[in-house]
Amino acid sequence: MSQMICLEQAAKFLSDAQDILILTHKSPDGDTIGSAFALMHALHRLGKRADVLCQDPIAPYYSYLFENGKYDTTLENLPFEPKTLVSVDVADQKLLGGKLSQYADRIDLSVDHHASNTGYAKQLLLRSDAAANCELMLDLIEAMGVKLDQQIVDSLYTGIVTDTGCFRYPSTTVQTHIAAQKLLLAGAQMRLIHRLMLESTSRGKVQLICDALHSLRYELDGKCAVISLMRDRINELQVTDDELEGLSSLPRSIEGVQVGVTLRQFKSYQGYKISVRTDTTVDACAICKRLGGGGHAGAAGCTIEGKDVTLEQAYQKILESVRVELCQ
Amino acid sequence: MSQMICLEQAAKFLSDAQDILILTHKSPDGDTIGSAFALMHALHRLGKRADVLCQDPIAPYYSYLFENGKYDTTLENLPFEPKTLVSVDVADQKLLGGKLSQYADRIDLSVDHHASNTGYAKQLLLRSDAAANCELMLDLIEAMGVKLDQQIVDSLYTGIVTDTGCFRYPSTTVQTHIAAQKLLLAGAQMRLIHRLMLESTSRGKVQLICDALHSLRYELDGKCAVISLMRDRINELQVTDDELEGLSSLPRSIEGVQVGVTLRQFKSYQGYKISVRTDTTVDACAICKRLGGGGHAGAAGCTIEGKDVTLEQAYQKILESVRVELCQ
Repeated sequence: MSQMICLEQAAKFLSDAQDILILTHKSPDGDTIGSAFALMHALHRLGKRADVLCQDPIAPYYSYLFENGKYDTTLENLPFEPKTLVSVDVADQKLLGGKLSQYADRIDLSVDHHASNTGYAKQLLLRSDAAANCELMLDLIEAMGVKLDQQIVDSLYTGIVTDTGCFRYPSTTVQTHIAAQKLLLAGAQMRLIHRLMLESTSRGKVQLICDALHSLRYELDGKCAVISLMRDRINELQVTDDELEGLSSLPRSIEGVQVGVTLRQFKSYQGYKISVRTDTTVDACAICKRLGGGGHAGAAGCTIEGKDVTLEQAYQKILESVRVELCQ
Repeated sequence: MSQMICLEQAAKFLSDAQDILILTHKSPDGDTIGSAFALMHALHRLGKRADVLCQDPIAPYYSYLFENGKYDTTLENLPFEPKTLVSVDVADQKLLGGKLSQYADRIDLSVDHHASNTGYAKQLLLRSDAAANCELMLDLIEAMGVKLDQQIVDSLYTGIVTDTGCFRYPSTTVQTHIAAQKLLLAGAQMRLIHRLMLESTSRGKVQLICDALHSLRYELDGKCAVISLMRDRINELQVTDDELEGLSSLPRSIEGVQVGVTLRQFKSYQGYKISVRTDTTVDACAICKRLGGGGHAGAAGCTIEGKDVTLEQAYQKILESVRVELCQ
């Protein structure tokens, strides 16, 4: 298990560290990317070598966060031999992805906001009531004594708006608004970030939303709504995993729905990734734990894997799990 | 013209006032309703008689803002003869609506955040950089020395989230987040309010979004996207006009689209109401003015009326207007 450390200890550790490689989770979202780039920029300001590594490509619309608008770091072209490994917003070492597995048992510090963090890193800085990991990262960067500049505040604001649905998800707290206030005051490019992160839907995604709505089924007296996304169609429409994430909140937003479920076929076609979103009356994490997954009370996930798993089988499995929790 | 007054003057005026009737604008939204009920509750705490009056019915899902969950004040059953008239979030006396026209020239104080306020009231407390009028109302209530309680903070938070699209619209500022922070700290029921105001899509609306996406057409090299909503289907799905408004922002949110157009058939079936949303490069108001309409630079509207107007005719007319402005 990890040694739990506090903000000041983590700041001291990073201030003493050299050649830091910051790892994000696979299928990266705005919060893991924002956390990673904010920390990288902060470490650069302290005169250190630091870089970000992600198993999967980081979408080009995040380019406003990159150094000089450029980012092309891969496992093959690391600019230095890492002496320190830090993971950000990564609840489980498996979420680094298979390509980064060589680092999985060597993480020095995990900075995370998932209560379900498995304690895989040597040290863990955890704030499970942070709506976004970037809230915690803001405090960490301030504790490191680094001045908030444009790239740092843009990175952090990106993580906060993407992980809270722009201050909308139930996880949002007073602290989230205090963070937003600090970041906007320090010049975060709110309009640009909202436009890129929240208001730019690709044509493919629009078409996929249409498909998703067609697949919509109401279950358990309308308390549960389920949408299903098939891989052939995702490929055909060239929709990225990042874009798919946003769809998960769709079924839960329907009147009377307490549990919204999204099934998405794996790239390998061998099973389904399942996202569960709930209102305050049902525990999404409990639903997913029954199938080996985890997450937060309002948003959680699990997978149903196997070469021959059909959509209907996966559908019935998650539905059964929802049924049990709804009857609690 | 109104006498412009400051926060302290307005607070003093209200503290000295008796039998206060608070007027909202017609077709009330969350900000005018939130402002009105927050002020009413604050005046009650000071031991005064105060009530809210709106020309149109206030939807029952606002019941958490009412006194004892009940509100049925109309022009006919006012509980007292008003000695003081205050309008909230009302930019122009015409917006009170015809039924309240008897009050239009007698407003003692207008509390508003529209730069376009016509100065119809005797006194005007204006903060045109407030994203929501409830931001200003929060400061006014604090200036009145009233403690923020549950009903007051719920009212104010409602106005802020509805008028800023939950901190998403470009009008959002640091002050908006400071207000949110105060209100959440004072116990505003964020989850309930988000659920009621932002996350409750009726099943009918979900189906209509599906229809709208089916009707989606790209025009002018993908710079324009158009959706069309037919009345038969709107009626069949029992979607309210209020719910339809939100759909107008859909086509503009697609990548590469500079002008988003929504055509909606009139209830009378005799023509189409057209909503235009643009990015910063095109003037929505100019597009609509060509067809006799108007509005703001980013959001405007017009109508194409006539018993025999077909969808295709209306479509071609607005498209021609978009084409001209896009080529400016």
